[in-house]
Amino acid sequence: MTIDEKVQQLRQLMTQNELDGYIIPSTDPHLGEYIPAHWAERSWISGFTGSAGTVVITHTFAGLWTDSRYFVQAEEQLAESVIELVRLTVPHTPEHLDWLINHLPDGARIGVNGTMVPAVSVEAMSKRFSNKRFNLETQLDLIGSIWTDRPALPVDPIIEHTAEFAGKSRSEKIDEVRSEMKALGTDFHFLGSLDEIAWLFNLRGQDVPFNPLFVSYALLSTDTVTLFIDQNKIPDDLSAKLRLDGIELQSYSDVIQGIQEIPAGHKLLVDSGRTNHAIMQVVPAGVEVVESLGPVTRLKAIKNDTEIEGLKRVMIKDGLAWVKFLHWLDSRVGHEPITELSAANKLEAFRAEQSDYMGASFHPISSFGVHGSMVHYAVDEESDIPLEPAGIYLCDTGGHYLDGTTDTTRTVTLGRVTPEQKKDFTLALKGTLAVSMLRFPAGTKGYQMDILARKALWDHALNYGHGTGHGVGFFLNVHEGPQTIGTGATGHMQTAIVPGMITTVEPAIYREGSHGMRTENMTLCVTDIANEFGQFYRFETLTLVPIDTGLINLSLLSNEERRWLNEYHQRVYAALADQLTDEEQNWLKDRTQVI
Amino acid sequence: MTIDEKVQQLRQLMTQNELDGYIIPSTDPHLGEYIPAHWAERSWISGFTGSAGTVVITHTFAGLWTDSRYFVQAEEQLAESVIELVRLTVPHTPEHLDWLINHLPDGARIGVNGTMVPAVSVEAMSKRFSNKRFNLETQLDLIGSIWTDRPALPVDPIIEHTAEFAGKSRSEKIDEVRSEMKALGTDFHFLGSLDEIAWLFNLRGQDVPFNPLFVSYALLSTDTVTLFIDQNKIPDDLSAKLRLDGIELQSYSDVIQGIQEIPAGHKLLVDSGRTNHAIMQVVPAGVEVVESLGPVTRLKAIKNDTEIEGLKRVMIKDGLAWVKFLHWLDSRVGHEPITELSAANKLEAFRAEQSDYMGASFHPISSFGVHGSMVHYAVDEESDIPLEPAGIYLCDTGGHYLDGTTDTTRTVTLGRVTPEQKKDFTLALKGTLAVSMLRFPAGTKGYQMDILARKALWDHALNYGHGTGHGVGFFLNVHEGPQTIGTGATGHMQTAIVPGMITTVEPAIYREGSHGMRTENMTLCVTDIANEFGQFYRFETLTLVPIDTGLINLSLLSNEERRWLNEYHQRVYAALADQLTDEEQNWLKDRTQVI
Repeated sequence: MTIDEKVQQLRQLMTQNELDGYIIPSTDPHLGEYIPAHWAERSWISGFTGSAGTVVITHTFAGLWTDSRYFVQAEEQLAESVIELVRLTVPHTPEHLDWLINHLPDGARIGVNGTMVPAVSVEAMSKRFSNKRFNLETQLDLIGSIWTDRPALPVDPIIEHTAEFAGKSRSEKIDEVRSEMKALGTDFHFLGSLDEIAWLFNLRGQDVPFNPLFVSYALLSTDTVTLFIDQNKIPDDLSAKLRLDGIELQSYSDVIQGIQEIPAGHKLLVDSGRTNHAIMQVVPAGVEVVESLGPVTRLKAIKNDTEIEGLKRVMIKDGLAWVKFLHWLDSRVGHEPITELSAANKLEAFRAEQSDYMGASFHPISSFGVHGSMVHYAVDEESDIPLEPAGIYLCDTGGHYLDGTTDTTRTVTLGRVTPEQKKDFTLALKGTLAVSMLRFPAGTKGYQMDILARKALWDHALNYGHGTGHGVGFFLNVHEGPQTIGTGATGHMQTAIVPGMITTVEPAIYREGSHGMRTENMTLCVTDIANEFGQFYRFETLTLVPIDTGLINLSLLSNEERRWLNEYHQRVYAALADQLTDEEQNWLKDRTQVI
Repeated sequence: MTIDEKVQQLRQLMTQNELDGYIIPSTDPHLGEYIPAHWAERSWISGFTGSAGTVVITHTFAGLWTDSRYFVQAEEQLAESVIELVRLTVPHTPEHLDWLINHLPDGARIGVNGTMVPAVSVEAMSKRFSNKRFNLETQLDLIGSIWTDRPALPVDPIIEHTAEFAGKSRSEKIDEVRSEMKALGTDFHFLGSLDEIAWLFNLRGQDVPFNPLFVSYALLSTDTVTLFIDQNKIPDDLSAKLRLDGIELQSYSDVIQGIQEIPAGHKLLVDSGRTNHAIMQVVPAGVEVVESLGPVTRLKAIKNDTEIEGLKRVMIKDGLAWVKFLHWLDSRVGHEPITELSAANKLEAFRAEQSDYMGASFHPISSFGVHGSMVHYAVDEESDIPLEPAGIYLCDTGGHYLDGTTDTTRTVTLGRVTPEQKKDFTLALKGTLAVSMLRFPAGTKGYQMDILARKALWDHALNYGHGTGHGVGFFLNVHEGPQTIGTGATGHMQTAIVPGMITTVEPAIYREGSHGMRTENMTLCVTDIANEFGQFYRFETLTLVPIDTGLINLSLLSNEERRWLNEYHQRVYAALADQLTDEEQNWLKDRTQVI
């Protein structure tokens, strides 16, 4: 079927169901960032494969709303179809709702598949639509009726992520969640987020690209735990272990019945931002819903001592891979053909040499020259270009290890640098340093810190259009909440950054048509001094990869910044040198020289 | 009646009305910061006179919740009464609701006078109470039944604030509001905030201490404007002018009827954070309520050219008063008896010499030594102490002029200074400078900037417990929204700081039992450069009062900070010198020397 045929079929179904508009979001029933192909309805109907975007179809218009990261890609992918690109003016906002409000008549009927959107979004939608008296229809799965050859749900086996790595058994974790349930006055808790379920049960899967997740739901009560999952995915010995831990296994599709059977008079804890609308709709009338950020979200974000120790081990392994890669790149570029893709593969190969490596934590960004100025450039065979010994190379990659997940960006020069490039790199680096060096009182939120990452750029009338930092899962999603460092547009704003949280720091600068530069480290929040002004915290930088001092304009650095950088490089060398070849060691010695 | 008798009478009424708890907030029907004595119910029932606090009475407990600013005062004022002080752990939060939820049984009946609380708070309360199935009763005015000798509502005459100063006629302003009403799809707009009404009608009153307000409500439709007010307050010629401008005058108590008579099918724009619950309750069923930040709040915050010119004139007048005062203080302290109160009066007298002066814009903070460490120390005859020629003097005062309102804090040494004092002063001053020197892109909010004011303090494990800045009215409330610079706990967070907004910058440091230091300036947001990274803004510092360089540890200042300070002092001298006596001029010359 062509895109136009799909849209036509959808419109016929809309007519049959008396709908004036239909919204196809990019999420799935578990509301994750990456989704299994089975649920990629928005990509299927539009042909647009970017991670963020919403399609809206009416009888006279078909549009895809996406943000500036994807304008070029969407233009190309929509070129031949009836679907028009609508450019979001503010990222992460539902501007398609404004369009519907402005273009459809009072009392119009709008459809959206309630299983594919968060309950909280449906609430917000209804509120926005109320002025125009729109009727919102959430029960119809129109794409399901026309997408007859959709891929099956994945059936890959799941594995156990033992307490040796996770630091806590699943029983301990379940107890902790039950304490939080009790504190919130509730006795049932529903979980729809795949990373929360994976964390809680100490299990990992392969159902989603780059995220070690498995498709499932979970329901806890004060004395029962039910995991709704395709049981073919669970090896027999693991099933037995789970049952021994008191976990009841039910089939994935039984979740609706599981919710419907919660006895009246009980209180159900739900994170309505991470639970789809259809689930919320089947909660029995006698069950009181208590909405709150899910306890697992918070527990998971604060890493325990075993996880922190694991991460520190991982940083050495990942640092070794990076140094071997950067040394290789430095010595081979210009002598043998290297492309963005082959470079990314080389780094992946170095990571794979390390123990307990489980795969890439996200689609590698390996970009040379002008490609670096495209914020979310994901290298593939079509876009691939050769690396040359003159220009700026930006590499943002990460790995999953059993003992932790990494996310690191380094920008290096492969030849001569212009003064403007040095200035750009240094100003963005000053942002990384400012956040890394910060001391802050308990209660400080990420939106408060964000400006430190930008101030040196703003002083020169520069800026970057994305967030400054995000939480990182532990052998789990590389983007993990609830904390973020950003301007406040996204994330769970009221979450303070507290000891045990792992957060990236990644200020950047993008010059359209020229280059992009970013230095990204992972940081651990740790306890600092306490006095009559309160308890203070600070960040410990975990990432152990040299920063290209050849790109630094030293006159733009303060003494403190220079000192931090020198100490950092000493630490990198001390941690990695003894596991490198002589040649690599010499290279690292040179690259970590005092500046 | 003693406090205990009042509480006893209230409990009898609670029994008659089958209430288990009664909440007495500190606000009034117009939800302002300062309130007329007529409505000071919380002060009357408790004897506690602080500006913020909530009393909760049950049949077995009576408590006052207030924040750390008022712990000492509340302890003293509640010492002899049945009412216990409950210390808020987080300022500005309704922790008394948690107490009620934890202490009263399921299904309890709680009362609060719906005319005294914002509609949005009643909504939040109901939501919080729903888990315990509390019934919230908002129709009963129990204090009104027992407070038989309450002061009358004020009847002082109102004056016109002509377009010569305001920059726009009331008709122009009403047109602007109607445009915003239209943009929001509404055709009626209710106003309950006294400063919004004063601004919209270019009128000023005397009903509230320090705020030039008059008790009233207003209702706009697409073609009518009604002001609900005690018409005895309006001089005849002004009444005539208002009628000529199409404004219908109705008595204050007619507001309920005015709302009830809005015809069905219309859409009423209401700011539910600035409208009391009782008003919202009488909106007819057929009228659709659209909630939004009030258009006047936003229009009023962005000063027009006439207002900005006026403010710049006012800054010279206020600066002259300050310089005369500081010179007087400097030359007389130790030679004649000066106290905190007499000093404040002296500054007030210097202000009164200036043209179009209309009075103090808030209760003066004039604090010497240890008093400076009490953040909201308001000097009065009981607390007054002498100023001595050794120690730190902190003075935070402001004036209303027909051409603008000021709010300035200076900290000066009256004798020798310790290195710790210099360090404290300089670190807090660095905060003032960091915000003042900031360049920022369009869209930046105050919560993003706040950390710049604190970072130098945090670096030394210091902090201050209040916001960094607030909007300032134009011959109106010295605290005005919607913008704030703060950690994000209060204010209309999503408001960006845009050109035309006036915002204070006032980082500080308080050493308990020793001293307090603060440097506060008023800033104007202005346009800076625009490029491919967007439109940038910056702040222009309006306040023209020398900063005590004798308190500065120069080694803690960067070259940029020093340059800014020297340029600022040059500007202060150039603006004021020619209107000073020779002696004052010499003093100012000395105090604005290059450092």
